Amino acid sequence: MITSSRLRLAVLAAGLCLPATAFSLEASLREVPAKEIPVPTAGVSPQEQAVIGAALPPYWNDHPKDAAAWKALINLRADVINKTLPGLREKFGVKSEQVTIAGVNCYILTPDNIPEPNRNRLLVHVHGGGYVFAPGEAATREAILMAGIGKFKVISIDYRMPPDFPYPAAMDDAMAVWKEAVKTNDPKKMAIFGTSTGGGMTLAMVLRARTEGLPLPAATAPGTPWSDMTKTGDTFFTNEKVDNILVSNDGWLGEAARLYANGHDLKDPQLSPIYGDLTGFPPTILTSGTRDLFLSNTVRVHRKLRQAGVAADLHVFEGQSHAQYAGDPDAPETREHFGELTAFFDRYLAK
Amino acid sequence: MITSSRLRLAVLAAGLCLPATAFSLEASLREVPAKEIPVPTAGVSPQEQAVIGAALPPYWNDHPKDAAAWKALINLRADVINKTLPGLREKFGVKSEQVTIAGVNCYILTPDNIPEPNRNRLLVHVHGGGYVFAPGEAATREAILMAGIGKFKVISIDYRMPPDFPYPAAMDDAMAVWKEAVKTNDPKKMAIFGTSTGGGMTLAMVLRARTEGLPLPAATAPGTPWSDMTKTGDTFFTNEKVDNILVSNDGWLGEAARLYANGHDLKDPQLSPIYGDLTGFPPTILTSGTRDLFLSNTVRVHRKLRQAGVAADLHVFEGQSHAQYAGDPDAPETREHFGELTAFFDRYLAK
Repeated sequence: MITSSRLRLAVLAAGLCLPATAFSLEASLREVPAKEIPVPTAGVSPQEQAVIGAALPPYWNDHPKDAAAWKALINLRADVINKTLPGLREKFGVKSEQVTIAGVNCYILTPDNIPEPNRNRLLVHVHGGGYVFAPGEAATREAILMAGIGKFKVISIDYRMPPDFPYPAAMDDAMAVWKEAVKTNDPKKMAIFGTSTGGGMTLAMVLRARTEGLPLPAATAPGTPWSDMTKTGDTFFTNEKVDNILVSNDGWLGEAARLYANGHDLKDPQLSPIYGDLTGFPPTILTSGTRDLFLSNTVRVHRKLRQAGVAADLHVFEGQSHAQYAGDPDAPETREHFGELTAFFDRYLAK
Repeated sequence: MITSSRLRLAVLAAGLCLPATAFSLEASLREVPAKEIPVPTAGVSPQEQAVIGAALPPYWNDHPKDAAAWKALINLRADVINKTLPGLREKFGVKSEQVTIAGVNCYILTPDNIPEPNRNRLLVHVHGGGYVFAPGEAATREAILMAGIGKFKVISIDYRMPPDFPYPAAMDDAMAVWKEAVKTNDPKKMAIFGTSTGGGMTLAMVLRARTEGLPLPAATAPGTPWSDMTKTGDTFFTNEKVDNILVSNDGWLGEAARLYANGHDLKDPQLSPIYGDLTGFPPTILTSGTRDLFLSNTVRVHRKLRQAGVAADLHVFEGQSHAQYAGDPDAPETREHFGELTAFFDRYLAK
């Protein structure tokens, strides 16, 4: 039981306030008034300010009613990404090669020059997009940035997705590629990384690799991971409509979760890896932003890893909404983010 | 210039949205509707839930009109803290001794048992409280937690404060103690730490030590530092009235800044150390919470340190407002926080 004197002590403890009343259920729902928030400028590049200041996406509250409606939205968005890829590969000096690994469509991204320490290293990439977006080559955007900035060879997995292929197709494909890749590559020289859905999958892959007795990667980089699909976590609420990428779990995002789960329990650690046992995980670097709807998804994983004694680094970018550390390839923040990942991999991957 | 196609690319890059329109000044002010936010429970202890769910402090929007009004508020709050200190020292097995160092009132906090590696190590503590609160022994609350949990000897500095002693009295006192302490202690075995105002002072002390040619500490731990007194930083806005400790810069907090600065430029790095050159800083561990008004103050320092190549760790606690990692001595999160600091100091301080 929480008593008045206990709370008084606890709150005063912070050295900055006196509680008005004892803790009560009414007090626990905090009323936050409407506000207008300006774009942060201090320590934020002009390119990133544009990303942060953009209007909410018009379809954030879409609830596609059937598979055809999903596919129309998926294809529309993939087309726009795909048009940017040739220029992006050229800018970062990266070659893309489509291959099939263990029956799964993949892309191998190879930078023009691989420095000596990275010659035998290999990164495995699982893309973001709510388990529905970024099929085919659109999967490779983040992998191009990582390959080009970090100078690593990257395999990007074009895992199967809903509406045609719900859980566990995505994880089955990702694990099939991992299982195949570790046959011919040294896992001590390998890492897994990805953003959002790809961050959640990165964590779920380590859990499943352990369960299946497969080697673990030497490091992982789950960027703002979808670690909890149940709308649990403080910033699902505090950053609702503050984040201009995901905006709210009550739009397409929550629909995508249900479409992917296809009746499975969203608390299954293969869907929401925050509920898994993170003991024995490899060194992990996590990234988020102060406006990110998934900031709690990120820091909850960080804390749980630290509680398990895992070497885990956290980076939070000023003002950024979900995954905006990769929002503009020309923003200094994008180089900074992939630079942090590169330094982390260089520290923990064998040569 | 930001063009429509550039933004389209940038926002799509995150793989999750399509911009409605090109970036515009109108779009850059984001409208966030009023909301009710529940207390987070997943991964948050019951004790911490009580701290997070407490009502706003009744005086957050006080604007004391003169020195007498300030002193009344200061003394009221100090009395409440002081009553808790004997029990806190007993609980954590810490002895407090009042001493004068270089003419400055200080307290030496000594844990019952100091393990061998910590025998010659010494931590210097600068307390929080907006440069106005926690005079005298009330300064020592956080130092007791650090001494007791980390098993370090701690000097806590009772620096002079407004309304009687504005800037630079606090910094003069802190530096006088530092200068004296490094005469008889090895700075390679020393760290400086503090929360909020104490975090800002920790950073400002390193800047001033460098300027004055004094030795730097081997590590620092600025907790949710008041690194920017100018109300610059995204979470001054996004977390306004979300944070139940500081609540808003427009209450007593902004008044305290002006009272302390006493006409000096708030952008002076001795007042707002984010504007200083952080090159060559010692390894630094920073801590904040997802609801913290100073989350941006914290992550901006973290990023600037990382950009300068400094070893800097960031920890962000789920759901916590300002400095609530020390809110309840009995919360597991409090032990976790001081445990992280302990491990960090153990890593970077010589034995």
